[in-house]
Amino acid sequence: MAKVLVLGAGMMGTAMTVPLTDNEHDVHLVGTHLDGHIIEEIHESRTHPKLRSAVPVSVKPYPIAGLEEALRGVDLIFLGVNSLGVEWVAEALGPLLTGDVPIVALTKGLVGDGQKLTLLPHVLRNALPSSYREEVRLAAVGGPSIAGELAARRPTGIVITGSDQTLLDEVASVMRTSYYHIWTSTDVIGVEVSVALKNVYALAVGMVQGWMERDGIDEEGDVMHNMAAAIFAQALCEIAYLVDYMGGEVENVYGLPGAGDLYVTCMGGRNMRMGRLLGSGMRYEEAKARHMADDTIEGAELALAIGDTIEAMIERGDLEGASLPLLRTVIDIVCHDAPVVFPWDRFFTSETSLHPPKRS
Amino acid sequence: MAKVLVLGAGMMGTAMTVPLTDNEHDVHLVGTHLDGHIIEEIHESRTHPKLRSAVPVSVKPYPIAGLEEALRGVDLIFLGVNSLGVEWVAEALGPLLTGDVPIVALTKGLVGDGQKLTLLPHVLRNALPSSYREEVRLAAVGGPSIAGELAARRPTGIVITGSDQTLLDEVASVMRTSYYHIWTSTDVIGVEVSVALKNVYALAVGMVQGWMERDGIDEEGDVMHNMAAAIFAQALCEIAYLVDYMGGEVENVYGLPGAGDLYVTCMGGRNMRMGRLLGSGMRYEEAKARHMADDTIEGAELALAIGDTIEAMIERGDLEGASLPLLRTVIDIVCHDAPVVFPWDRFFTSETSLHPPKRS
Repeated sequence: MAKVLVLGAGMMGTAMTVPLTDNEHDVHLVGTHLDGHIIEEIHESRTHPKLRSAVPVSVKPYPIAGLEEALRGVDLIFLGVNSLGVEWVAEALGPLLTGDVPIVALTKGLVGDGQKLTLLPHVLRNALPSSYREEVRLAAVGGPSIAGELAARRPTGIVITGSDQTLLDEVASVMRTSYYHIWTSTDVIGVEVSVALKNVYALAVGMVQGWMERDGIDEEGDVMHNMAAAIFAQALCEIAYLVDYMGGEVENVYGLPGAGDLYVTCMGGRNMRMGRLLGSGMRYEEAKARHMADDTIEGAELALAIGDTIEAMIERGDLEGASLPLLRTVIDIVCHDAPVVFPWDRFFTSETSLHPPKRS
Repeated sequence: MAKVLVLGAGMMGTAMTVPLTDNEHDVHLVGTHLDGHIIEEIHESRTHPKLRSAVPVSVKPYPIAGLEEALRGVDLIFLGVNSLGVEWVAEALGPLLTGDVPIVALTKGLVGDGQKLTLLPHVLRNALPSSYREEVRLAAVGGPSIAGELAARRPTGIVITGSDQTLLDEVASVMRTSYYHIWTSTDVIGVEVSVALKNVYALAVGMVQGWMERDGIDEEGDVMHNMAAAIFAQALCEIAYLVDYMGGEVENVYGLPGAGDLYVTCMGGRNMRMGRLLGSGMRYEEAKARHMADDTIEGAELALAIGDTIEAMIERGDLEGASLPLLRTVIDIVCHDAPVVFPWDRFFTSETSLHPPKRS
């Protein structure tokens, strides 16, 4: 039995307490500065505003003010904040740690600084106090893991990644249950780039539905799977290109972190909702403001976080633009309020692509 | 403008007449011996019993008795029979041809003879008259291409494969329209193995729904995408293993023929319906007899066509059984009436797998 702290009481952080308590760990769930009402609700009724499943009775909920107390003696920390909260986490947690407690990021993302792309675990590490920045052991989670399903104990399979196999094995044994199936991989780039990019590509798959409806092609009621499937395949090719470019292995692109996580993300949720709005003809700024102002749309956030950098890297010749027609399209749509136009002629064509079928 | 014959008036063969006539080709649609009523219906009303879209006015429908007449002067033949009909086709068509008309197979499949697996285009070639068997130019089509959508002129993207790039380019130019996006690949094994196997793996993804419903895990109404996504990812890994084993390139596994076609096949249809019945606890023989007696379930047909051979190849050590836990599970279920049990512990574990995340 371990003493485990989960920081962030969003859906994923809270869902993670279910397998952890099923494994009889002592679980402290600490809300961020934005999660006060959630912690209160859990405290009062063992419910979570967005999860249907009950929060396990043994979970100890803390507001952010209780972080220091909650941290006392913990063996392992899970970060359940969204991708925008990583630097906040480093500030909140950094001064309270000494570097001997491993951190597992549930958060996914990439950050662009105009020059290059950085994986979220690296952003986290860089933001921690220099006294233990280099030594702290980090791991991250990737794969199809919709929080509501995990909390309902429905079978879920994920990959834990990090450079330290011993840590990965430890974390896996802390998390694994009869319904939570865990594999490990030391290919951090392959896993992290895949799980980050799946959001932006799911947005593209989501556009298909709206695009078809707008053109009245959907009148007979069938869903447009041929087109969604082609976009899905193009997405995998582009993720493979970027993983390879950044030095990762393409195997994870085709396993749980890439194909698996993209699949689950295409089955519903906020990326798909926004995609449909965009496909129907609405521009991003209007769709966000009018329909999803209060929602974090991970795919759009990622496009905004890396769009300028991707464009600059292509401009400089660091990235091959012909290998990323779909990503460039989504960046145009989200970052520059462009209309949805699918560049069919540029799909599956790149000579540098890992996927060489020729468009004759 | 070419003179084109489509043999087989099922959904796919008939749907193919839409882009062909849009390209102003002279299209002869010949029903098989089982398609008499379809040809009659097309003749009388330009409708097809299973397609919602009208059959183009310029398509000339022929019963099988008119095959010889319909063949006169054709430049290209498309085969739209299902995978069970390939040898019938060779018998019907063989004596009427001289080998100078290329054949494009819309049919997908693999055949096992107890010793090895053979691609359907090769089965076709072997069944043609020896006088021109070796010379006849063959191509085949793979990728997400639900017939009803193609007939409705919804965007669809596919790969044409064959060993003769000149033929592939010719066929592509005959088929390509503004909504039918065509790429080519000379990796016949990669394309054909992917598109054949997607059916058997879609059956496995379909089982998830029924399995969850049976266990009452679905009570809260969410669809079980984490689990379906994990099965989807395992399927891609196994397809990659088999493509690699047979000498193909894994790139097509992750493009339109593999990931794209598997995606579209998981979105509905007969494989998914049968999968759901199986997952709910019904054995294959009962489910087939009671609920889908008149349906061709491509995934089950493939399992029956290759099951014994796969088992024998594993037994002999030709195939690595640890790389195919999901395929073996489906074979057990379909060929040996076994109950649905998902072998999580054997997923993503193979040392010979192309996908090395370790299950620690």
